[in-house]
Amino acid sequence: MSGNSFGTLYCVTSFGESHGPAYGGVVDGCPPGLELSAHDIQAELDRRKPGSSRHVTQRRETDTIEILSGVYEGRTTGTAIGFLIRNEDQRSKDYSAIAEKFRPGHADYTYWQKYGIRDARGGGRASARETVVRVAAGAIAKKWLRERYGVQVRGYLAELGQHKIAFKSWNDVSANPFFAPNAQRVAQLEKIMDELRESGDSCGARVNVVGTGVPVGWGEPVYGRLDADIAAAMMSINAVKGVEIGAGFACIGQKGSEHGDEMTPQGFASNNNGGVLGGISTGQDVAVSIALKPTSSIRLPRRTIDVRGNATTIETTGRHDPCVGIRATPIAEAMLACVLMDHALRHRAQCADVTPPTQGRKPQ
Amino acid sequence: MSGNSFGTLYCVTSFGESHGPAYGGVVDGCPPGLELSAHDIQAELDRRKPGSSRHVTQRRETDTIEILSGVYEGRTTGTAIGFLIRNEDQRSKDYSAIAEKFRPGHADYTYWQKYGIRDARGGGRASARETVVRVAAGAIAKKWLRERYGVQVRGYLAELGQHKIAFKSWNDVSANPFFAPNAQRVAQLEKIMDELRESGDSCGARVNVVGTGVPVGWGEPVYGRLDADIAAAMMSINAVKGVEIGAGFACIGQKGSEHGDEMTPQGFASNNNGGVLGGISTGQDVAVSIALKPTSSIRLPRRTIDVRGNATTIETTGRHDPCVGIRATPIAEAMLACVLMDHALRHRAQCADVTPPTQGRKPQ
Amino acid sequence: MSGNSFGTLYCVTSFGESHGPAYGGVVDGCPPGLELSAHDIQAELDRRKPGSSRHVTQRRETDTIEILSGVYEGRTTGTAIGFLIRNEDQRSKDYSAIAEKFRPGHADYTYWQKYGIRDARGGGRASARETVVRVAAGAIAKKWLRERYGVQVRGYLAELGQHKIAFKSWNDVSANPFFAPNAQRVAQLEKIMDELRESGDSCGARVNVVGTGVPVGWGEPVYGRLDADIAAAMMSINAVKGVEIGAGFACIGQKGSEHGDEMTPQGFASNNNGGVLGGISTGQDVAVSIALKPTSSIRLPRRTIDVRGNATTIETTGRHDPCVGIRATPIAEAMLACVLMDHALRHRAQCADVTPPTQGRKPQ
Amino acid sequence: MSGNSFGTLYCVTSFGESHGPAYGGVVDGCPPGLELSAHDIQAELDRRKPGSSRHVTQRRETDTIEILSGVYEGRTTGTAIGFLIRNEDQRSKDYSAIAEKFRPGHADYTYWQKYGIRDARGGGRASARETVVRVAAGAIAKKWLRERYGVQVRGYLAELGQHKIAFKSWNDVSANPFFAPNAQRVAQLEKIMDELRESGDSCGARVNVVGTGVPVGWGEPVYGRLDADIAAAMMSINAVKGVEIGAGFACIGQKGSEHGDEMTPQGFASNNNGGVLGGISTGQDVAVSIALKPTSSIRLPRRTIDVRGNATTIETTGRHDPCVGIRATPIAEAMLACVLMDHALRHRAQCADVTPPTQGRKPQ
Repeated sequence: MSGNSFGTLYCVTSFGESHGPAYGGVVDGCPPGLELSAHDIQAELDRRKPGSSRHVTQRRETDTIEILSGVYEGRTTGTAIGFLIRNEDQRSKDYSAIAEKFRPGHADYTYWQKYGIRDARGGGRASARETVVRVAAGAIAKKWLRERYGVQVRGYLAELGQHKIAFKSWNDVSANPFFAPNAQRVAQLEKIMDELRESGDSCGARVNVVGTGVPVGWGEPVYGRLDADIAAAMMSINAVKGVEIGAGFACIGQKGSEHGDEMTPQGFASNNNGGVLGGISTGQDVAVSIALKPTSSIRLPRRTIDVRGNATTIETTGRHDPCVGIRATPIAEAMLACVLMDHALRHRAQCADVTPPTQGRKPQ
Repeated sequence: MSGNSFGTLYCVTSFGESHGPAYGGVVDGCPPGLELSAHDIQAELDRRKPGSSRHVTQRRETDTIEILSGVYEGRTTGTAIGFLIRNEDQRSKDYSAIAEKFRPGHADYTYWQKYGIRDARGGGRASARETVVRVAAGAIAKKWLRERYGVQVRGYLAELGQHKIAFKSWNDVSANPFFAPNAQRVAQLEKIMDELRESGDSCGARVNVVGTGVPVGWGEPVYGRLDADIAAAMMSINAVKGVEIGAGFACIGQKGSEHGDEMTPQGFASNNNGGVLGGISTGQDVAVSIALKPTSSIRLPRRTIDVRGNATTIETTGRHDPCVGIRATPIAEAMLACVLMDHALRHRAQCADVTPPTQGRKPQ
Repeated sequence: MSGNSFGTLYCVTSFGESHGPAYGGVVDGCPPGLELSAHDIQAELDRRKPGSSRHVTQRRETDTIEILSGVYEGRTTGTAIGFLIRNEDQRSKDYSAIAEKFRPGHADYTYWQKYGIRDARGGGRASARETVVRVAAGAIAKKWLRERYGVQVRGYLAELGQHKIAFKSWNDVSANPFFAPNAQRVAQLEKIMDELRESGDSCGARVNVVGTGVPVGWGEPVYGRLDADIAAAMMSINAVKGVEIGAGFACIGQKGSEHGDEMTPQGFASNNNGGVLGGISTGQDVAVSIALKPTSSIRLPRRTIDVRGNATTIETTGRHDPCVGIRATPIAEAMLACVLMDHALRHRAQCADVTPPTQGRKPQ
Repeated sequence: MSGNSFGTLYCVTSFGESHGPAYGGVVDGCPPGLELSAHDIQAELDRRKPGSSRHVTQRRETDTIEILSGVYEGRTTGTAIGFLIRNEDQRSKDYSAIAEKFRPGHADYTYWQKYGIRDARGGGRASARETVVRVAAGAIAKKWLRERYGVQVRGYLAELGQHKIAFKSWNDVSANPFFAPNAQRVAQLEKIMDELRESGDSCGARVNVVGTGVPVGWGEPVYGRLDADIAAAMMSINAVKGVEIGAGFACIGQKGSEHGDEMTPQGFASNNNGGVLGGISTGQDVAVSIALKPTSSIRLPRRTIDVRGNATTIETTGRHDPCVGIRATPIAEAMLACVLMDHALRHRAQCADVTPPTQGRKPQ
């Protein structure tokens, strides 16, 4: 399987470029009988959409989804779900000034070296606009997980640059364009973003994602671990440079007597492991945290080379998010949902006949 | 493909349990013609071996590898390389006292819930002893990468519990049982470990791994990213709770003007991206860092439940590493080597006919 | 990987239903730099198109392909090639009379049982119209194989019902709507088809496909054999019930002294093995033959049951090919081309460094 | 996934060579809780074993299986089942005379060209002895299918060279070394084989395999069809040159009114489709037929070339089956069982929640 698909049983295949006519995808393996309409997916796409606030790219896209197959009379049929999202604002004039220069921190150099092809119009296949496909596939996974298993997948912005945002409430998350879990911090975040945009620079972010209600037992040992698949899914998101499960890097400084989550008849006493032990879900929250690097395309001048290898400088104007992390929450949720759904299917394939040994008295 | 295999073209399949007769594996996809002997693999296995110092488990294993196929007259044939590592010290008497209790932070609970099977003898398939298979497969990958592309894969212990170990030299790494990159710190590390063992507790660790000499162009866009596959490979190692590429989580607090690695005719000016842009190698060092949690099996008493769901306490005696991170360096190297080799093969499959556009004047 | 994708490195993913808005596909893994236009693909689609003669379904479709990604300035970029073929004539009124009855020999019963969903409009995902996606993917593979390796993939109708058609010339194949390799037989074939249509019945067919110029060495031993992948690809075509390589079933009655192709300095003396030995191409023609069953949807009344399990009879009127085998030649060619391309890529991934031992003096 | 593995969820990985120390395999994905002992597998291996009659190779092998993992206290644990079968009679002296000559119809030429490696000792990885691994994996699949779903997989020799053997009874099959379904024909078959052996020649064979009790609904549409996977599995068996499902090639000469199996409230009235419609099982017998070519290694002299490309002749003495088809029945059964089990798991992954619409009144 080549690089534009992911998932074993809930399998997503993606295509499209930022300056081409459309993005699209194929979701294969969705169980039949799930109620599904374009509206279900659109709602998630709208959360990720550009232009939703002054703090993100002003590229004008409605991101309207068209379902082309796999749904009949409002229900999934069990066959491949094909969908299309037309690009409406794919003007490439912004890029003429930098057509022959590489952008520091950007993938144009590596794509060029790998494929011997240079697309002067912009991000091409490397554009973060590809994440529309992930969000669409994730919307289906979210709905199925919720209806079939009561699993909920939610995320929020935990850090904006050097500013930590303490979690206050899930309700706050949906009430601001940052997905910040604390409404009282929003004014400050707006100010940070305004200053950042004015300065011509960009900043990084941390996004946390949580799967709640995941049953114990999802995940496969050794290489097919639930957390290994989550790590790949998260690291495959544009700009992600780090992934943590549970305590993550904090576990380095922990003692075993502190890290190892004690068990009681009422459930686990803590969740340092992030809901995964030995690659298999514990029944606790699956807790994931990711680091997103600052946007590469900034207005400040930077040293670079051109396609002939000569030294030059570059300033990127155009419609770029000054912090890609701001729109990353629905994307990270989508990836977690897809991985969880894949493992739900894989688990019941192999273990459909297992009677859970502690039925009725299991922890958590 | 189920959970005991990984890799697309350089594909490793693993089997074995800590208290069964043997571990073994199958390496599929290795190019023909590579000089390979059991000795090449044994050298790597010996680096990971238990009993190599007083700071690791005293389980007595020679970890002797037997190559069963795929090598003829000292060279790989291109067909499946099967190998076996017999368990020599699989006594299970140590476990009788805890046969009916779950160990906090350990996978025995999740395996039991998933499969409905309880192996009272110990870690079973979840044991970190499975990593012998990874190290064996990685030894082949390392050799091929070195001979075919001049790629070198090396790692070291960067943090032991709350103690950071500054990198001094690669020579130091091989001269101490901790894989510490600074010989002057070894006495201190020994003291830390002695105290830890006496206290009956355990601690976490950070291991850094670096691939040097990786050509530009390895990795596939979107989901098959080089860093996504690295993340999965690392997170699949027992006890790993976090993975970073390049600047990793530090990128959150960086500005774009700081993070985006500038390019010059002499190469990249920095390596915040860890040698990967857009999922494709840049030609710089591929830099990976992982967090390993403290060993779950500790002597200190902890609250837990038994198989009937009743509250109890547990103290794990036995032969456990007080810091699993100490022996993790060769394992992490092995995983990185396997991923790099897989992508080397995948890259030349698709792009064998590409003439690199900047031949002779490319950065770095 | 679920059922709507095939191929390991040249990977095709398909979606669409006969009465939905569109078919489409994603081709992943195509090497960059291949000159490719919609016209290249359209030419192959036109060979498969309905309505091309009075002997095939009169459904009116232009089968116009729209390439949505993966091609830039007339060349493949190495990223996913997405494409779309809109359905233009998806009226479903023809099916109202049989909405509640199962059609003997048709997949409506098994889909209903598997998925619990009944699409009363017709073939749905099981329709042979899905083969547009295969033909499109195959057109790209054919072009690449021809330009990169000089491989040519061609097929012809070898039997129409009980009538064998001896091979005369490849030129004849393209000069008649049956893909018959003998122009002198065309009038007779038209007569057979006219009688068949009048009778309200259908007939089977045999199609032969040949890959010429395939280098020695493509294919992987044991399970990943070239012929195993060809067999799967062919059997996955709608209506195919048998696949042969080389002598095929005739080998049962052959002696070893007759079947085993002798070798001479000028090459193999015969090709009973169909260009594959031990799953690896020999350098000879890769020769494949398939059996296609008679169309299931016929006008003659047949016994069947309805969705409530009651006995009834059915007569299928509508726009069905009386012999699906007539339009199968470009489809079978496409599938062979895709498999060959996949193995070309897989071979050079593993064996790029092998110097063929008989360079310059190898048989054939 | 490279060529030495097959199956999506019930995944078999194989290694070993005819003149190496051992064959072995890893079965991944087997559900936990299946009672399994070495004896269960040994019984199937003994059916395939060389030396079981004077009509097959006299190589002396006990084919003793050693289970190395994945079974605990007599039950599968759900983790990888590793197993080993030591070669006991791997003498290679027989091959010295032909070390530099290619054997017509044999894979030594293609392996040499592909990998650049020549193993002068014999079949190496291409040897049909590899089928021990398939039979072992198939034994587990057969047991699970029988116990979990009541599915039975059985085969028989349907043609020996030009001699058809009419099916009489399953009881007869197990009572003779040919797997002939008609005891009265055994004396004649022995005579044919004796004459063949004396003549120094070999002959082909047809083996039929049937899966009984397969529920309706197994198989995935389009490319992941049940019959497509069966075709690949069968064609991957050494010496197989053709695969048929149901009527197979006979469907070419059938009319639609004859081929399309009518349905009645009591079930399908016939089984031309071989238990598969649209790639999905119908609930009828899954009926497969394969053609096996005559053994390539024969005593009669044949024209060939040597490794320098010079013309020569070859006579193969040694311990070869004069008809490989005779021992193929348990192998073909094993492959069918593996594919059915894989699809059983895949089906319940996706469709576990489907209520079969005709519960209680479905055909057959």
